[in-house]
Amino acid sequence: MRSHSAQAVTRLALAGLHTSLDSPVSESMNFLNEIALRFPDAISLAAGRPYEGFFDVDAVYRYVETFRAHLMADTGDETLVNRTLLQYGRTKGIIHELIAEHLRVDEDITADPESIVVTVGCQEALYLTLRALRRDDRDAVLAVVPSYVGVHGAAQLADMPLLPVKDAAEGIDLDDLAAVVRDARAAGLRPRALYVIPDFANPSGTSLTEETRRRLLDAAADHAILVLEDNPYGMFGPDPGTGEDTGAPTMKALDRAGRVVYLGSFAKTGIPGARVGYAVAEQLVDRGGDGPDETLADQLAKIKSMLTVNTSPISQAVIGGKLLENGYSLRSANTRERKIYQDNLAHVLDGLAARFPAHRAPHVSWNAPAGGFFVLLTVPFTADDELLEHSAREHRVLWTPVHHFYADARPRNQIRLSFSHLSLQEIDDGLDRLADLVHERTKKVTDDDQARPGTTAQ
Amino acid sequence: MRSHSAQAVTRLALAGLHTSLDSPVSESMNFLNEIALRFPDAISLAAGRPYEGFFDVDAVYRYVETFRAHLMADTGDETLVNRTLLQYGRTKGIIHELIAEHLRVDEDITADPESIVVTVGCQEALYLTLRALRRDDRDAVLAVVPSYVGVHGAAQLADMPLLPVKDAAEGIDLDDLAAVVRDARAAGLRPRALYVIPDFANPSGTSLTEETRRRLLDAAADHAILVLEDNPYGMFGPDPGTGEDTGAPTMKALDRAGRVVYLGSFAKTGIPGARVGYAVAEQLVDRGGDGPDETLADQLAKIKSMLTVNTSPISQAVIGGKLLENGYSLRSANTRERKIYQDNLAHVLDGLAARFPAHRAPHVSWNAPAGGFFVLLTVPFTADDELLEHSAREHRVLWTPVHHFYADARPRNQIRLSFSHLSLQEIDDGLDRLADLVHERTKKVTDDDQARPGTTAQ
Repeated sequence: MRSHSAQAVTRLALAGLHTSLDSPVSESMNFLNEIALRFPDAISLAAGRPYEGFFDVDAVYRYVETFRAHLMADTGDETLVNRTLLQYGRTKGIIHELIAEHLRVDEDITADPESIVVTVGCQEALYLTLRALRRDDRDAVLAVVPSYVGVHGAAQLADMPLLPVKDAAEGIDLDDLAAVVRDARAAGLRPRALYVIPDFANPSGTSLTEETRRRLLDAAADHAILVLEDNPYGMFGPDPGTGEDTGAPTMKALDRAGRVVYLGSFAKTGIPGARVGYAVAEQLVDRGGDGPDETLADQLAKIKSMLTVNTSPISQAVIGGKLLENGYSLRSANTRERKIYQDNLAHVLDGLAARFPAHRAPHVSWNAPAGGFFVLLTVPFTADDELLEHSAREHRVLWTPVHHFYADARPRNQIRLSFSHLSLQEIDDGLDRLADLVHERTKKVTDDDQARPGTTAQ
Repeated sequence: MRSHSAQAVTRLALAGLHTSLDSPVSESMNFLNEIALRFPDAISLAAGRPYEGFFDVDAVYRYVETFRAHLMADTGDETLVNRTLLQYGRTKGIIHELIAEHLRVDEDITADPESIVVTVGCQEALYLTLRALRRDDRDAVLAVVPSYVGVHGAAQLADMPLLPVKDAAEGIDLDDLAAVVRDARAAGLRPRALYVIPDFANPSGTSLTEETRRRLLDAAADHAILVLEDNPYGMFGPDPGTGEDTGAPTMKALDRAGRVVYLGSFAKTGIPGARVGYAVAEQLVDRGGDGPDETLADQLAKIKSMLTVNTSPISQAVIGGKLLENGYSLRSANTRERKIYQDNLAHVLDGLAARFPAHRAPHVSWNAPAGGFFVLLTVPFTADDELLEHSAREHRVLWTPVHHFYADARPRNQIRLSFSHLSLQEIDDGLDRLADLVHERTKKVTDDDQARPGTTAQ
């Protein structure tokens, strides 16, 4: 038996490691994860996780069996089926045809299965795409901000500057997009793509109208950039065809110029623990006469082969089976969850109205998305990490300061509320606690104002 | 119904995409994958895949159940168990404690579970590590070449030059290592780590003696570099304690200075389709007084959160269950497979000796590893991709030209033979076909020599 007591330690300097590791983004992700762990009994209006009430491990086995039966029916060869499920496999994945069918059924998207790369969650699809589009220091990605923390992270990790484009009531400020592209080019940069969540964006909840989507596609063609369409929440709006249905088609479905790379997630509609997502990348890649044409998907697959080799076929079988059992429709597979998300959203909006009546202090306002996982709240004070820490400790409620979605440290007076994983009672309790914090904080602001000579409390 | 016929195409130039995509490495991986698909009825002495004969989907369900029962026994909380298995989860993974126990049982490695990051296969562990060690253009990784194609790929993708260190009979030329480090520093580069497979290396099959391992650890400390120890095949040698046992401890087990980052794979010992690997990275990271000490593992986890978020807990449960069912020993879980690999290796070595008698043309030689998946064959002609194509088409046998493991296009006269997934009969047939090729090719070389005026056939 060897002794392990003489073990010495090697020290590395953070300043010598990848730049993403000392960026605000990395600190953000770390802080947000860590505070939830430190206050486990706080109600979380912060976590954007799917509802867990219907989680069922037995269904996982059934899904794999369903997919296995599908493979057996296809091939009649048990050895081949076992190899497909358990051996190293196709880099682009094994459920690409089922995903293409799902996109047709649920999103009216026509996609060549060969242009689909199945990935380890949507995050890998995003990283593969950014890495592919990054040739050198000049390449940049654009994003409507505030935006998903993960796009800031992926861009940092890909060594790609992320140029913020202004949000607007319609979801994106197209004039600002033009200005950002123009300024970037003038500065010697190459804007390659715009990242956008057109449906119930994270964190704003905003959706782009069909008209805005078409104008954005035209702008992308004019600016010679791609559109990276991330669509994790599109299914969680009002029922299509109902009077409340405000859903526009996906940008991929509207795309006539081949500008869209579609980033798909099964984390909210399938099973988060499968960690399966995908990219649809039909763009052609010019290899300078060197062999036959390839697609951008082919390039993403090559990068994936150096990164994760292939996505677990067992995980893919879980999602594949769920697609097969539901006629390829995740919209119908999520009937119960969709109702919960819509009910929770309504409960949050009603609950905010009841706790913060209009035209009365404290002056709190919020937007009213038609679906998705998030509501954006504007408060009359700065909502930073310090306040979140206080909120977690003293009020036992968590929420997300919006500055994390700008990837800078500048505190702002907005917070993101999420509700997807909560019961109605938890929403009530969470909003009560949040209201206590807001009242306490507003009183403090007012007291501070009164204490300051020469000012008058408004 | 929208019409999809008006779809136009966006074209991108390969020269504008990431440099890894037009590198020889990317072409290598693509070519090697593609040729196997084009000649599916060829016997593959090329694929380094584990034996499939014991693949069993029902065992996968059982493993997950075993892990679920383990979680239930731990927590007694079914909601929590379902959340652990199916929800978004801990970035570093959920089977870290089981892996630490496995390392103790099978490898005599003591590892803090908190310093283990569970990854999407070993390839992700490798990429995370290289990405973390890459601050700017000056950072470089070293590797003993010929080496695993995936290390060339990961380095390319991480924008890190890979500096080749010479192979030697003992597995690494330590004088060359010193020279490479010195020259790199003189050229303004920062050598950060040496990648090495100390046991039954890919493609050479070579193992480092314990003495060489110790000298390499000392050299790493002297040169102030890390050692990235990749160990996919270490278990596939002769039985420990038998007369034939030549196995040395892992470098991680011998490491007293904290120089080793251990890269683990379950693709060969667990189930390839789970796509689970891990890194053990206990090095401390100095954050300049900013918060408590963190480990390199903590940094790898931060990068992972921007890349794949977390490894599928379902996949982890498959491996976790297999570990639990086998008292954490994959050595004992692989008793049958280990015998097959040893028998196949012996059959290849015997088969080569029978087909290519010593001191008789054609002059073919090969090494004789004590275990692993590979034998390296030296032939009296250049073995390039063109010859492989000919071999596949005319002789129906696949093998791997060794130049792919140098990541350059310079053809060499060595080929890698693998045998891990074959039956004895397939090995016989494959070697027969290979011998036909060698004889044909040697005759051609001789004929060419005779046809050339002024030369004499030897």
